[in-house]
Amino acid sequence: MNLAQALFAPRAVALVGASGDAGKNTARPQRYLKKHGYTGRVVPINPSRGEVLGVRAYARISDAPEGIEHAFVMAPGEAVEQALEDCGRRGVPVMSVYSDGFADAGAEGAARQARLAARARQLGVRLLGPNSMGVVNLPGRMALTVNAVLEMDAPPAGSTSIVSQSGTMLGTVLSRGAARGLGFAKLVSLGNEADLGAGEVVELLAADPDTRVILLFLETVRDAPRLSAAARAAHAVGKPVVAYKLGRSALGQALARSHTGALAGSDAAMDAYFHDCGIVRVDMLETLVEIAPLLAGRKPPQLSRTPRVAVLTTTGGGAASVVDRLGLHGIQTVAPGSDAPIIDLTMAATPQKYAATLDALLASPECDAVLAVVGSSAQFHPQLAVEPILSARRTGRPLAVFFTPHAERSLKLLAQAGIAAFRTPEACADAFAAFFAWRAPRELPRLPPLEIPRAVPDLFAALGITVAQSQVAQAPGYAHTVPYPVAVKIHAPDVAHKTEVGGVILGVRDRDELVQKATGLRSAQVLVQKMESGLAEAIVGYRDDPLVGPVVLVGAGGVLAEVYKDYVLRLAPVSAEEAEDMIGEVKGLAVIRGFRNLPRGDVRALAQAVAAISRLALVPGRPVAEAECNPVIVKVSGAVAVDSLIVMKE
Amino acid sequence: MNLAQALFAPRAVALVGASGDAGKNTARPQRYLKKHGYTGRVVPINPSRGEVLGVRAYARISDAPEGIEHAFVMAPGEAVEQALEDCGRRGVPVMSVYSDGFADAGAEGAARQARLAARARQLGVRLLGPNSMGVVNLPGRMALTVNAVLEMDAPPAGSTSIVSQSGTMLGTVLSRGAARGLGFAKLVSLGNEADLGAGEVVELLAADPDTRVILLFLETVRDAPRLSAAARAAHAVGKPVVAYKLGRSALGQALARSHTGALAGSDAAMDAYFHDCGIVRVDMLETLVEIAPLLAGRKPPQLSRTPRVAVLTTTGGGAASVVDRLGLHGIQTVAPGSDAPIIDLTMAATPQKYAATLDALLASPECDAVLAVVGSSAQFHPQLAVEPILSARRTGRPLAVFFTPHAERSLKLLAQAGIAAFRTPEACADAFAAFFAWRAPRELPRLPPLEIPRAVPDLFAALGITVAQSQVAQAPGYAHTVPYPVAVKIHAPDVAHKTEVGGVILGVRDRDELVQKATGLRSAQVLVQKMESGLAEAIVGYRDDPLVGPVVLVGAGGVLAEVYKDYVLRLAPVSAEEAEDMIGEVKGLAVIRGFRNLPRGDVRALAQAVAAISRLALVPGRPVAEAECNPVIVKVSGAVAVDSLIVMKE
Repeated sequence: MNLAQALFAPRAVALVGASGDAGKNTARPQRYLKKHGYTGRVVPINPSRGEVLGVRAYARISDAPEGIEHAFVMAPGEAVEQALEDCGRRGVPVMSVYSDGFADAGAEGAARQARLAARARQLGVRLLGPNSMGVVNLPGRMALTVNAVLEMDAPPAGSTSIVSQSGTMLGTVLSRGAARGLGFAKLVSLGNEADLGAGEVVELLAADPDTRVILLFLETVRDAPRLSAAARAAHAVGKPVVAYKLGRSALGQALARSHTGALAGSDAAMDAYFHDCGIVRVDMLETLVEIAPLLAGRKPPQLSRTPRVAVLTTTGGGAASVVDRLGLHGIQTVAPGSDAPIIDLTMAATPQKYAATLDALLASPECDAVLAVVGSSAQFHPQLAVEPILSARRTGRPLAVFFTPHAERSLKLLAQAGIAAFRTPEACADAFAAFFAWRAPRELPRLPPLEIPRAVPDLFAALGITVAQSQVAQAPGYAHTVPYPVAVKIHAPDVAHKTEVGGVILGVRDRDELVQKATGLRSAQVLVQKMESGLAEAIVGYRDDPLVGPVVLVGAGGVLAEVYKDYVLRLAPVSAEEAEDMIGEVKGLAVIRGFRNLPRGDVRALAQAVAAISRLALVPGRPVAEAECNPVIVKVSGAVAVDSLIVMKE
Repeated sequence: MNLAQALFAPRAVALVGASGDAGKNTARPQRYLKKHGYTGRVVPINPSRGEVLGVRAYARISDAPEGIEHAFVMAPGEAVEQALEDCGRRGVPVMSVYSDGFADAGAEGAARQARLAARARQLGVRLLGPNSMGVVNLPGRMALTVNAVLEMDAPPAGSTSIVSQSGTMLGTVLSRGAARGLGFAKLVSLGNEADLGAGEVVELLAADPDTRVILLFLETVRDAPRLSAAARAAHAVGKPVVAYKLGRSALGQALARSHTGALAGSDAAMDAYFHDCGIVRVDMLETLVEIAPLLAGRKPPQLSRTPRVAVLTTTGGGAASVVDRLGLHGIQTVAPGSDAPIIDLTMAATPQKYAATLDALLASPECDAVLAVVGSSAQFHPQLAVEPILSARRTGRPLAVFFTPHAERSLKLLAQAGIAAFRTPEACADAFAAFFAWRAPRELPRLPPLEIPRAVPDLFAALGITVAQSQVAQAPGYAHTVPYPVAVKIHAPDVAHKTEVGGVILGVRDRDELVQKATGLRSAQVLVQKMESGLAEAIVGYRDDPLVGPVVLVGAGGVLAEVYKDYVLRLAPVSAEEAEDMIGEVKGLAVIRGFRNLPRGDVRALAQAVAAISRLALVPGRPVAEAECNPVIVKVSGAVAVDSLIVMKE
């Protein structure tokens, strides 16, 4: 049995817990299947009725006739486990579970879910959910869901598919899109992902002939490696994958944790992950709804300079509301053949003039994309307003449209023509920003495993990071061979922030001063370290993120590292060349890149340190949870770590 | 003649350049006046027709019968000047000019506009525009405009008024609002503001009994003092003023300049200005459309701690999309009586349960505002979905609603009830952020004028800023009395960034080193300055902003000041107490505020320096364009400026 067929186009479905009361949620799947034209067999399962909404019902799946390809379970409690046993017995290949009380309900529910998933594997039944709202296949007229969005008449079929961890937000995207004439193909509510996860569903959609663009609504990522592979597979067949991911703020993360029971990774790590596997990340919810036509059939732009958008408008103020925002995203506007920032035809523009100008822009090599803005005519004369846009000669160059007024009919006309149109200036600019930030998946480096010493002090040196020369010195004489001036630190590997507890004395000039100062630290042993000075302080770090795995970080270092959070993350490991690119994106490290004629620092040496720490990802078993050198002193020649920290996994 | 009456409720209007072709823009005002129920007299002025659209027309205003209270001029070229003369002759109190070719059209047009405004003053005719789309008074059924948004049938009248520098965006706000059932009172398209400016119009609206909330769409600010006074007047009578202002990005500023011919101020200065006069600034266009019910009848919250919003929802994912964004704005969520971040009633919520919970939250002292989120029922059962919200016991606590699906009917029901509802999670969070950032206008300090020395080197000391001890020393001996160690700088007041051109040598220990190093600078004179060291570097600055006037700045200093743009601005002058508040908002100055047990710096001394430089605003004639001390070394005791710069106006 083909998984995609059973999931999206089963020839017979069982509805476990189907209600005979048409007003109940549990009656919805049967109503929706009928309403939206399902042509397969529907088998209600209800222990207390022989008939449900006019259709013959059975007490259990095992009582029903053979041939069920997808069971949708809404019954509460033990009925879920019973349905699974029945599915296994009758060879039902896919079971979707709407019922809750699993990982969404604390530790006990999580254990119940683990047992359910394990049993499903034994039985060879694939599981969607639990806590899933089901599956919809619009071109295939199969609406197997409790989602009330299917109350709508004839949602338009299209080539955009949605995969969502939130069932209601799946409905939100469909509801908002359909109101705009945007069509959809497959819609999957993942629920708790006990078995089928985002990664595997994206794999199915990458292979789905009805799907051209894949949208993800994510609260967490539970299967990072598989989703990464699936996104790469989608890229290989020319299908963009777009994600809206909650948890950008600490508050959002806390909510996702309480809502899904999922672990919390860092949002910066999630960004690095999306970048790594070529997933386009959008910032706003409506961008997710609206962006598909901008991406469909396109490849990542891979620009290595500031993106340039040509703007054509009939209203200066309307264009300005998008342009101002584009500027905040670091995008330039151009008006080929003019000094003005945009082309403002004003109200007197004729459709002919608008169309001719638009054609010229779409063909111009001076811009990377075109934005067309239309004012009030979009509301009152839709056909007239969109005609010049519909008739424009489509080129490889992306085209986006923003209508300033409330203009539902104009939006529909463009949606039907497959032209990207945006309701708000902010979503329009967000879409351009996401488009230009879109990169092909990174080629995965093939590197051999790495052995590291178990003794922590030598670890950084073993990785290839230059560390400041140091020795442990004993009271009362504190003998050592480190050249002066030196720094003296209390020798306590457990103390992470020695500076803050007064445990560091800098600039000790000679032996007398050393003895005096070290004695003051009241520690039998001190660490004597060569004073290093340079052009800037950097932070270099490694973390095994609970969601996306090993990431490497470089940023502005020292005490302000935490204040400014001015750093760049990538999935680890990275090469020294990739690390140089990262350094180029850190604002505060401008001071070593030739800013204002300041002397240049050894960016390459810092990049080598970044690449070195990133190789912790190659250690078998990945025993390191976190490692950090802060500060790394960047000199005209060389980069030296003067303080570092390592945390092993428990 | 009362200006407000002539502008908003004239008993007779003349339409200069009215077209007899109903399809033309210049026929619109006559069509719209009729369509929307204007009961006054309409007098078309057209030199070539005795009748326009069935109404008796005259060649000139001077030929028409007496009693015209508002002339709307659409005729091009010299006809504008002619119409003004006629208005003067016939005592027409207000003339609105749609015609362009003035400050919107280069230097020549600007000169023409200046002449027009001067002549209007002579004649005692008040001028709206030029380049204005006109005025609409919805409760008064007076639509004197060319804006095509008036094609709509019966835009709802309400108590929100809009003042816009962009005519099309005035239409945009009305169009989007009306589609949502949001009503408006007065709408004014300001155009180039040759005479009537935003400030004076806001004054009129502050006194307008139909207006409860005033919205501003701004591309620039041309009359900062008057708008500030008007915002204060509006505050005094309990009317919130809200601004959406373009020019947040450099690109947006460049566009505003090319579009309006206006000067460019800094966006940070504009923020400081809005803060000063109690104007609520929103970030997103739709927030401007949607925020009025959240503010109407309320006072600024003036919270001195993190704002807390209680969230009630039927959908976890839907609430999360707002909550995540609230977190990015630094707002907390609370669920009174629970540890969870929100109250998620899930799909099984009954209307009774929802209503009871909402009532409890609105009455709870544990939150500052309430957010109600509703899922798919808002689309398919509007009455049912909004019923618990409509029936909630309204308290002083602000309530905002977010519907996850496309739910136009539910939005309308709430609009009619005066309850704030938002289409997107982003605008919803933006509105909460704007609400909590809302402050009462600052009480203007009454300070005496200040005399400053004309000699620049003494200026900072005269203001009361401690500057590092220094002397000019002459080659070849470089004699001076500054204690070692010293810094040596080339003595060239014109060189702004001496460090970058190699003109500064730090840490010179004695006379021999001084002579050697100073000789190397190849300058007959050097500045010898005492070396200062401390806990942090700050930047303290003053600027006479071309739009909003004197502003004062404090931020993280040194070479990174420019990289991080981590500073806080306020209108100058400020007191030392206000300066301390500003310092508290600078991220990088955390290091002197007791961050991570680091020693505290002398915040008060730094605040005194900020207050001191801000007093440049009190110098008669305001001769200083810019002044800056960077860095100011903040010590455990004291704060010393070691480099400074001053730019006088030309």
